[in-house]
Amino acid sequence: MVSISAKLHLVNNSANQCAGTAHAPAGLSARMQKTRLSITHHARELTAAHGFTGFTVDQLCVAVGISRRTFFNYFATKIDAVFGHDDDGIPVGALDRFIASRPAGLVGISPTLQADLVALIIEQLNRDEQAIGSTQGFFAAVHREPELLERMVQVGPERQAEFLRLVAQREGVEPTHPGLELLVHSLQFATIKAIDRYLASESGLSLAEQYLAVLKMGQDLYCQPLTRQ
Amino acid sequence: MVSISAKLHLVNNSANQCAGTAHAPAGLSARMQKTRLSITHHARELTAAHGFTGFTVDQLCVAVGISRRTFFNYFATKIDAVFGHDDDGIPVGALDRFIASRPAGLVGISPTLQADLVALIIEQLNRDEQAIGSTQGFFAAVHREPELLERMVQVGPERQAEFLRLVAQREGVEPTHPGLELLVHSLQFATIKAIDRYLASESGLSLAEQYLAVLKMGQDLYCQPLTRQ
Repeated sequence: MVSISAKLHLVNNSANQCAGTAHAPAGLSARMQKTRLSITHHARELTAAHGFTGFTVDQLCVAVGISRRTFFNYFATKIDAVFGHDDDGIPVGALDRFIASRPAGLVGISPTLQADLVALIIEQLNRDEQAIGSTQGFFAAVHREPELLERMVQVGPERQAEFLRLVAQREGVEPTHPGLELLVHSLQFATIKAIDRYLASESGLSLAEQYLAVLKMGQDLYCQPLTRQ
Repeated sequence: MVSISAKLHLVNNSANQCAGTAHAPAGLSARMQKTRLSITHHARELTAAHGFTGFTVDQLCVAVGISRRTFFNYFATKIDAVFGHDDDGIPVGALDRFIASRPAGLVGISPTLQADLVALIIEQLNRDEQAIGSTQGFFAAVHREPELLERMVQVGPERQAEFLRLVAQREGVEPTHPGLELLVHSLQFATIKAIDRYLASESGLSLAEQYLAVLKMGQDLYCQPLTRQ
C-alpha cells in the first residue's frame, strides 16, 4: 500500500479547477491590490476566530473599513474572499524579476534556479510576515469545515500547477519535469515549517532567516547519497 | 499571502487523530496480513470503479473471497477497510531492517539516512507494484467524495507523523527536526511522481527504477546553492 500521506499529495495534485473568481479589473492599482489583500487577510482572521459561518460579509466589511459595494467589486462571495485572488500569492513585480533573473543564453535548467525561487519566496514571506500569525488559526479552521477543505483541495493544486507552468516556461522544460515538481513542492512545504518555527521561537530570527535555516537542514539530507554504495 | 498549496500542507499536518481501527490481533500471521492487504486492495478497486457508496461490504467480501464474519475480524467498517490498517503501509520486517541499518556508535544523523529511507520505500514499491494501477483511480474517487477526503486528511498526517517519530528515534533527534520532515515528505511525494511516470511510461522501467530516476532529478536541483553568491 502506497502510504496515505503520499496519496494525500496525489489528491492535492489531481484537482485542476480554476479558482479565479475576483471581479476587479486587470492591472489593479497598488491601492486596489492592498485593499484586496486586506479583505482576504481580515476574512481569514475572522474565520480563525469565529469559523467560516461565524461572521457575515457586513462584519467583514466593517473590519476592513469598506462598503459592501466595494467588497463585491473585489470578490463575488465570502468564500472567494477567504481564499483570495490568484494574483495575490506573489508580491507585484516579484514574478517578473524571477523570470528575468535567468541568465541569458543558457541551455537547460539554470544553475541558479533554486536560489531564484528562494529569493522569490522570501519576498513573499517578508511581505506577509506581519499577517502570518492568523494563518495558522485559519488553516486549523479550514480543517474543521468541509466546505473550506473542499475548496482548498481545489485551489491549492491549481495554483501550484500554474506556478509550476511559469517556472517550467522560464527553464524551457515541461511542467511535468519531476525535478521541478519536487523542488517547488519542497520549497513550499518548507515555508510551513519556517512559519511554525517563526511563531514558536523566541530567537528573534525573521521569517526569512527561519526559512533559510529550514532549507539548509533539508539540503544537508537531500544531498546524501540516494543508495548505499 | 502564503500560497494555498503551502497551506494545504499545513492542513495535512495539523490533524493528529489516530486512525487505527482494525480489530485483528497483534502479531498477525503472514497469511492474515495478506488477507488484510487484499481486503484494502479490493476495497480501493471497488471505490475507484463504483465510488465509495457504489458497493456493499457483501460485494467486497465476494471480491476478496471471504465471509462477512472474516471481514469484521479485520475491519469495523467499509471506510476503515478502504484506508487500510496502519501497519500495512510498510512490508513486514522492512521497518526493523531500516532501524537496524543505522551504523552503531554514530552520533548525529546517519550519513546513510536518505539511502536507508530510499531502500525502505523501494521495498514497499516493489511489493505494491502489481496493485498500483488501481491507486490512481481510488484517489481520484477520494477527491470526489467528502467523506473519504475528510478521512484522508486525518489519516495521512497521522501516519506521516508516526513514521517521522520512528525515523527521529533512530537518529536520536526530535521528530520536529525540519530537515527530517522535509526529507520524509519529499521522499513520499516522489513516490507519487514515480507512480505517475510508471503508469504513463512504456519504457519498461520498474516502479523502483522510476522512483530512483525521479529522486535523482530532484536531488540535482535541491543541491543547487540556496542563495545567489
